[in-house]
Amino acid sequence: MTITQNQQSPATIATAPDFAAIRSAHARIRPHIHRTPVFTSESLDAMTGAHLFFKCENLQKTGSFKFRGATNAVFSLTDAEAKLGVVTQSSGNHAGAIALAARRRGIPAWIVMPSTAPRAKRQAVESYGGRVTECEHNVASRDAACKALQEKTGAVLIHPYNNPHVIAGQGTAALELLEDVPDLDIIVTPVSGGGLLSGTSIAAKTMRPQIRVVGAEPKNADDAYRSLASCKIEPAAKTETIADGLRATLCPLTFSILREHVDEIALVTEEEILAAMRILWERLKLIVEPSGTVSAAIAIHKKFAVEGKRIGIILSGGNLDLDQIPFARATQ
Amino acid sequence: MTITQNQQSPATIATAPDFAAIRSAHARIRPHIHRTPVFTSESLDAMTGAHLFFKCENLQKTGSFKFRGATNAVFSLTDAEAKLGVVTQSSGNHAGAIALAARRRGIPAWIVMPSTAPRAKRQAVESYGGRVTECEHNVASRDAACKALQEKTGAVLIHPYNNPHVIAGQGTAALELLEDVPDLDIIVTPVSGGGLLSGTSIAAKTMRPQIRVVGAEPKNADDAYRSLASCKIEPAAKTETIADGLRATLCPLTFSILREHVDEIALVTEEEILAAMRILWERLKLIVEPSGTVSAAIAIHKKFAVEGKRIGIILSGGNLDLDQIPFARATQ
Repeated sequence: MTITQNQQSPATIATAPDFAAIRSAHARIRPHIHRTPVFTSESLDAMTGAHLFFKCENLQKTGSFKFRGATNAVFSLTDAEAKLGVVTQSSGNHAGAIALAARRRGIPAWIVMPSTAPRAKRQAVESYGGRVTECEHNVASRDAACKALQEKTGAVLIHPYNNPHVIAGQGTAALELLEDVPDLDIIVTPVSGGGLLSGTSIAAKTMRPQIRVVGAEPKNADDAYRSLASCKIEPAAKTETIADGLRATLCPLTFSILREHVDEIALVTEEEILAAMRILWERLKLIVEPSGTVSAAIAIHKKFAVEGKRIGIILSGGNLDLDQIPFARATQ
Repeated sequence: MTITQNQQSPATIATAPDFAAIRSAHARIRPHIHRTPVFTSESLDAMTGAHLFFKCENLQKTGSFKFRGATNAVFSLTDAEAKLGVVTQSSGNHAGAIALAARRRGIPAWIVMPSTAPRAKRQAVESYGGRVTECEHNVASRDAACKALQEKTGAVLIHPYNNPHVIAGQGTAALELLEDVPDLDIIVTPVSGGGLLSGTSIAAKTMRPQIRVVGAEPKNADDAYRSLASCKIEPAAKTETIADGLRATLCPLTFSILREHVDEIALVTEEEILAAMRILWERLKLIVEPSGTVSAAIAIHKKFAVEGKRIGIILSGGNLDLDQIPFARATQ
């Protein structure tokens, strides 16, 4: 078995999707996903002076927006491509998303996860029927494990963001948000590898050309900020952040999309992420994970002019280990 | 100033509301409340073998269903009654609900709270403009403080559940749930003083006579269970429960409604409440407080025959102190 099949797959042609691809993705995945609600909060509006519209992808199946892109990629495969299954590497939400998408298509999913991955995320993958292969916590070990699995099984690799079908799927969250709230001034998503922000920016700039597209990133993992500033992909220097889903770096595909469509990357500190997370839990009564909170944190902490603005905020996920809630004091 | 005005108020005539009163309440409060969403979960359905429909009153304004009854009571007052304000006693969600309802009507609200009330709940009351008076943690002190405030201010007392307008307002949650999911077999709410269960039972048995109405109560605060079994109001014997909103006892009004309309009171242990709360947080990504979880706990732990049944579950509230999450281990 070789991996040429994978290289021929439409799922790996590195061309940016257009808005038509996002519309197609939406039609393809709609039977499988939740159309997540958009929440508002009088108290958060009062706190910020803005009008905030929270797109609740923490309420998406598998607990994050990743299920959109994973489902679009898995269901875009031909039957011949799909029958041998899919493989991916992820320590987090993409893993669970691929596992469930594959199960819904009735094909196997092999998930390469570092042995350091949170217990809760590994359990989630297995509960969706994913077959976990452990690797060491470094790129070489991860890539070797993926390649070995592909060669052994013939499964198609579905990269977490270097994949136009994944990006198109992620763009459907912004599409729904702008269908529900057409007159947004600004839309904000977290940025890590850039899949969500890429899809969001393509959808938003097509549906509402005057909209401002903002990426939110932890100051402690600011490679997207530095990359757009220097006009070349900068490596992650330090990634000690509580937002553990935001430690990836851009790839050439997402970098090129972000350069074209994104107006600004805004940064928040660890303390600001934690404070925002607590506010969301207390005020919205929603479990949002630290990575999913970063987009709200830049609005709550007014990292740009928010006064009077209508701001769409994608809360990207809600998966975290409830034994390790960062602001909780134990009572038992 | 005397309190005769209060005794003449229609808000304190102890007659059970009928379904027409619940319909009227809904029309009256609709501009003020959230129509809360109804969530489903494939994983929880798989876990229980039932079809569960969660009415998310934790997402209601002020974080609990109590805002429905409070708003109906406050907006049912005549201008003459309302102008001197309202007073109530509550250590919890009714307090915040009355404070916000009064602010929306533009009248003062005096809230008598025990000095032992959770910090978060007192802060919430004050953030809604409520004027807090502390009392000792016993009935005599509480009633004396309420009476003194009424005499001093002329404010109308709005009891948390011994009030037909409050009960009619609480019934609007079930009304909405049955509008959204008409073919329920069973509907479950927590029971404490019995306001929510009373309103729910009147709405549900009118809209769907064959429905089974179940009250959910902690085994450690089982006075409603014992009262319906013995056909007289039993005092609370022990109320050491994590479900701190469920420590009240029935009044003659709610007792008579429950006897007529409720099919069963089911009990859950403290461990079952905690386990269910964790499942809701993990699977629904919703912050539900322990008291709000009890209704889900009896379905999750199959305290009656749930297999194949369509079960409406009112998640009654989401207010708790995030510094004191009962199943969290501290990480900082």
